[in-house]
Amino acid sequence: MKVVESPLEAYAHIDQWRRQGLRIGLVLTMGALHEGHVSLVRRSKDENDITVASVFVNPTQFGPHEDFSRYPRMLSEDTLKLRNAHADMVFMPSAEQMYPSGFSTFVEPPSVAKGLEGACRPDHYRGVVTVVLKLLSILPSRIAYFGQKDYQQYLVIRNMAEDLNLHVRVQCCETVRESDGLAMSSRNRYLKPAQRHQALGLWRALVTAKEMLAHGDIDVSRLESAMRNQLYKDGVDRIDYARVVDRESLEPMINVDRPSVALIAAYVGSTRLIDNIFLQADVAAVKTS
Amino acid sequence: MKVVESPLEAYAHIDQWRRQGLRIGLVLTMGALHEGHVSLVRRSKDENDITVASVFVNPTQFGPHEDFSRYPRMLSEDTLKLRNAHADMVFMPSAEQMYPSGFSTFVEPPSVAKGLEGACRPDHYRGVVTVVLKLLSILPSRIAYFGQKDYQQYLVIRNMAEDLNLHVRVQCCETVRESDGLAMSSRNRYLKPAQRHQALGLWRALVTAKEMLAHGDIDVSRLESAMRNQLYKDGVDRIDYARVVDRESLEPMINVDRPSVALIAAYVGSTRLIDNIFLQADVAAVKTS
Repeated sequence: MKVVESPLEAYAHIDQWRRQGLRIGLVLTMGALHEGHVSLVRRSKDENDITVASVFVNPTQFGPHEDFSRYPRMLSEDTLKLRNAHADMVFMPSAEQMYPSGFSTFVEPPSVAKGLEGACRPDHYRGVVTVVLKLLSILPSRIAYFGQKDYQQYLVIRNMAEDLNLHVRVQCCETVRESDGLAMSSRNRYLKPAQRHQALGLWRALVTAKEMLAHGDIDVSRLESAMRNQLYKDGVDRIDYARVVDRESLEPMINVDRPSVALIAAYVGSTRLIDNIFLQADVAAVKTS
Repeated sequence: MKVVESPLEAYAHIDQWRRQGLRIGLVLTMGALHEGHVSLVRRSKDENDITVASVFVNPTQFGPHEDFSRYPRMLSEDTLKLRNAHADMVFMPSAEQMYPSGFSTFVEPPSVAKGLEGACRPDHYRGVVTVVLKLLSILPSRIAYFGQKDYQQYLVIRNMAEDLNLHVRVQCCETVRESDGLAMSSRNRYLKPAQRHQALGLWRALVTAKEMLAHGDIDVSRLESAMRNQLYKDGVDRIDYARVVDRESLEPMINVDRPSVALIAAYVGSTRLIDNIFLQADVAAVKTS
């Protein structure tokens, strides 16, 4: 596996592979890799000739009071995991290489970035789409894989790629969970043992909404209340949002009468966690409700 | 010459040329082509195997009270001129193809976009860099040629391309002028015969500054005053700016002690014209002044 720090060297490798007609799949990460990241690498291996990963903790997507400085960094463990997953190259630039002195061009994210995470974390998606556009320029690939755990991020990047005519398919891949349901996240490392049960509240709240819908309750405000109740019952410390929205536009809904998604952001101690689940109205249930 | 309206079809042609290892040069225009545009096509022909032009009057770079609706459109004459210049392809998309319903991602231009045109025309460069990034994605080329007449635009695009790791060289080409010095511009068509002499005031003012510098006057405020005096003497109706600034940063200067550029934007009637000239301090003159 090639380990490359220089943007120009990374591009040169990709360019050579492209000239050979090889299909390239891309997995962009901030490192602190877990089984969710590895599953993206495996999927890319299945669907492409070459799989490239990047590890870069992007400063521009963290707010001033967020966890940029304490975000876990473990480059040697990450490299080992990517090598074991048979990635062909990992791109690990420094912040100076990505943002040299005088850097001042940003991407304004598409409208789907406005609510939810965008409302709680100002400029977060601006940083995300800027670095993703840069990484897609450095590592041009036919397809890039993102986890559903960051579902709004996937939509933001997909819309950005379409709006800017990028020739990459943006692929959403199922969230990988611990055996009890907790979504894998690099931030789970922050959780103390006693906080582990509280953190599971996110998944339990999402399952609650899904089960209510399965029993025919399509009323979004009732589903959202039930999620909040479950979160507080499990001892979550603060809820940023617990919403059921349209699956493509992320716009509010009254009833779950079309493909939707339930999304939660909540704090356990000082650790902010997010998770989501797709909700699909049972057509018969909607008609008879 | 291929005439292509669809972004995907245009990309497919480019992709095929690239796979053949051909060097592609790009000339982006808003049509109403004049000898300045044609000179860019000729330069690209000289330096590349394939030359691609685009003609697109980009709505997002015009302000609400600017001349978008009356901007000259002459697609058949433009096509003929590009054919005569032996361009290999012209890309002429519709506004709907470039900005389909739901489009909402923009590029925030780099800091060099802030002053001068950026101060006079809010959101102008936001529209420019957004459409240029889109066009560079649709028409990926090794080099793109821009006229020096729009010097700040060239700097904005070059900085954007560097910041976003685009693999294109952004090339500035000398302004083509009428025999009396007036910079060629699609907007010269707006000038009534009586306004033609007033319009020449921009060039005469720039030459005035250059001559003063040649005679050892390196004081920027005196050069700027002289330019304004010449502009008013020639009957220009309004001056947006007449400045001497650093040639790379466009930051203000006290003395012309390094490579600089004099830039003017002024109105003749309701027609807004711009022009500029490079100023190079004579090192000996600077030292002895």
